[in-house]
Amino acid sequence: MTNAEDLKESYQATTFKLAGSGARNVGVLKEALQNVDAELASDMYGSGEVIEKFERKMARMLGKEAAVFFPSGTMAQQIALRIWSDQRDNLPAAYHPLAHLEIHEQDGLKKIHRMEPVLLGGADRLMRFSDVEKLGDSVSSILIELPQRELGGELPDFAELEAISDYAKQNGIFLHLDGARLFEVLPYYGKTADQVCALFDSVYVSFYKGIGGVAGAILAGKTPFVAEAKIWKRRYGGDLISLYPYILAADYYLEKRLPKMAEYFEASKALAKSFNALQDVKTRPEVPVSNMFHVHVSRETEEMQAIFTAVQGKTDVGIVANLRDGISAGSCQFELSLGDSIQDVSREKLEEVFQELAQALRK
Amino acid sequence: MTNAEDLKESYQATTFKLAGSGARNVGVLKEALQNVDAELASDMYGSGEVIEKFERKMARMLGKEAAVFFPSGTMAQQIALRIWSDQRDNLPAAYHPLAHLEIHEQDGLKKIHRMEPVLLGGADRLMRFSDVEKLGDSVSSILIELPQRELGGELPDFAELEAISDYAKQNGIFLHLDGARLFEVLPYYGKTADQVCALFDSVYVSFYKGIGGVAGAILAGKTPFVAEAKIWKRRYGGDLISLYPYILAADYYLEKRLPKMAEYFEASKALAKSFNALQDVKTRPEVPVSNMFHVHVSRETEEMQAIFTAVQGKTDVGIVANLRDGISAGSCQFELSLGDSIQDVSREKLEEVFQELAQALRK
Repeated sequence: MTNAEDLKESYQATTFKLAGSGARNVGVLKEALQNVDAELASDMYGSGEVIEKFERKMARMLGKEAAVFFPSGTMAQQIALRIWSDQRDNLPAAYHPLAHLEIHEQDGLKKIHRMEPVLLGGADRLMRFSDVEKLGDSVSSILIELPQRELGGELPDFAELEAISDYAKQNGIFLHLDGARLFEVLPYYGKTADQVCALFDSVYVSFYKGIGGVAGAILAGKTPFVAEAKIWKRRYGGDLISLYPYILAADYYLEKRLPKMAEYFEASKALAKSFNALQDVKTRPEVPVSNMFHVHVSRETEEMQAIFTAVQGKTDVGIVANLRDGISAGSCQFELSLGDSIQDVSREKLEEVFQELAQALRK
Repeated sequence: MTNAEDLKESYQATTFKLAGSGARNVGVLKEALQNVDAELASDMYGSGEVIEKFERKMARMLGKEAAVFFPSGTMAQQIALRIWSDQRDNLPAAYHPLAHLEIHEQDGLKKIHRMEPVLLGGADRLMRFSDVEKLGDSVSSILIELPQRELGGELPDFAELEAISDYAKQNGIFLHLDGARLFEVLPYYGKTADQVCALFDSVYVSFYKGIGGVAGAILAGKTPFVAEAKIWKRRYGGDLISLYPYILAADYYLEKRLPKMAEYFEASKALAKSFNALQDVKTRPEVPVSNMFHVHVSRETEEMQAIFTAVQGKTDVGIVANLRDGISAGSCQFELSLGDSIQDVSREKLEEVFQELAQALRK
């Protein structure tokens, strides 16, 4: 076995995990369906109480007129940017070079909508107001991801967001929120979801990141925008006869985990502090602003695979399943997004983990 | 209440139904999950045993090298036609004017792929070999729907299909099967799925028509075709983190209902015969070739709504929930697709239904 395989196997063998809210298995769906009446009627191609009720609930929570449930955020966001582009003479969208659309969607936006986005910000930093204020009327929309996942979950200050929102409004640019992890940043901002969303014309949120559902997304905005999004959802083949498996799980886990976001945030700050106390280790952000952060280690990937494998085997705590090479040579990194699982790791266990790591890294 | 609402309500109130395999409700999913281990790991963005195993099973059943599970047939078929078009210098696809792509997808193919299809056949008849043999090298692909749903589930003879397939092969045209109801026509053709699919380069099958699953589709073909389809599936936002709710239900109901297709077919022929014995009523096809047919009544929609409402109320058997106006003035029509439900309707009940209908129509 390679070091990478050893690491993954040792992770899977652990009883406790730092990240997540438990295994992604069929039990997740079974739990969500447990108390649902078997007689509850399926949604039918976007209609029916089970989907419409949840859409109304999410529209209310996000402070928007309307919302539509999508099988995926990939589909929802491309469609949002296309609708805004259609309203501005086919002007392109602007977003960060590490946006999901740019790096994880096989160029869907470009291939499906022939849209070449304007990239704002850099691979090592967030988009700033100073990037945006040069745009004038050259773009139809700006997509902002809160938090920026590929940058460890960094966030702009709320005041900077407000400035960007004002500028967009004044220049006829639609502002779209990639809120895949929106709920996860509310404790840091000290805002409700609708207060954050008020800065945006359209909003996407996901139900399988911090919420821990099965799949699915909501796209919200004004009523005509959502009506148009439903037409595109049909075009994409996203208007499934039945989306209820995702909707019921989304609703169940939203109720279960939304109240816990502040706990996840606190646990994330404490855990990052422990990592930052280790030699050759630092987290990004140094002080997390959500339940997530990246861990950067200025050691070779192979060396760290061996160290983490040993510590996982000794402590029975899963730290990392897959290490990526870092950007600078001789470094490596991984992501941690906290959920329910961290609550099962006792303080003593955590101390043991970091003592073992500290000792291994001192060598 | 309108007559249409009365009809729908009287249908919903009946204990027995002629069509379908029971209500589309959460119980359908619960039944499928009942014996699935909660520890079974989710698929992850198209990978993992739960999806790969089912894809291999379906590829084998359809006699193709590979298969990919899609959330919907809409997505799967647009992608198939796009891939074939890319391989033939962007030549368009050809299909019937009543194809799903043409009338139920908000022009997805045209809007997403800028493809203007060539239409073959007519609103009142199937596509024929004589339509196809004029094509030469003017199209990249031909999509054939077996059975043609909007024509009551009509089918070409197998020999005509073979002739079309031969012609396509000789002219470098890819042949795609819209097999949304493929399993339903196998008893009539007296063929296995792979024998029918051998005539086609790519095949889509659905799991929520006769099979009665929750949603989802398979697209099958040669390995490079399926690899390309997976890239497009990602672009469309169809590569969900978890498709297992649909996959597990598809597999469960496939096992349960595939062996029953011959029974559904026999029941369909018998039921059509009873309808055809009624005054002013005829079915299309007159003798069904699958589990489905359309019922055409040369009476006003309003009159028939009242008649069906009365008969449903009297017999406790659901015949029709929604009547459509027919093509010719003063006529109406509806569709019947048989499944498990017809087996619960006793011969006596059926006789009662048709006696009541006969009496009402004689007036």
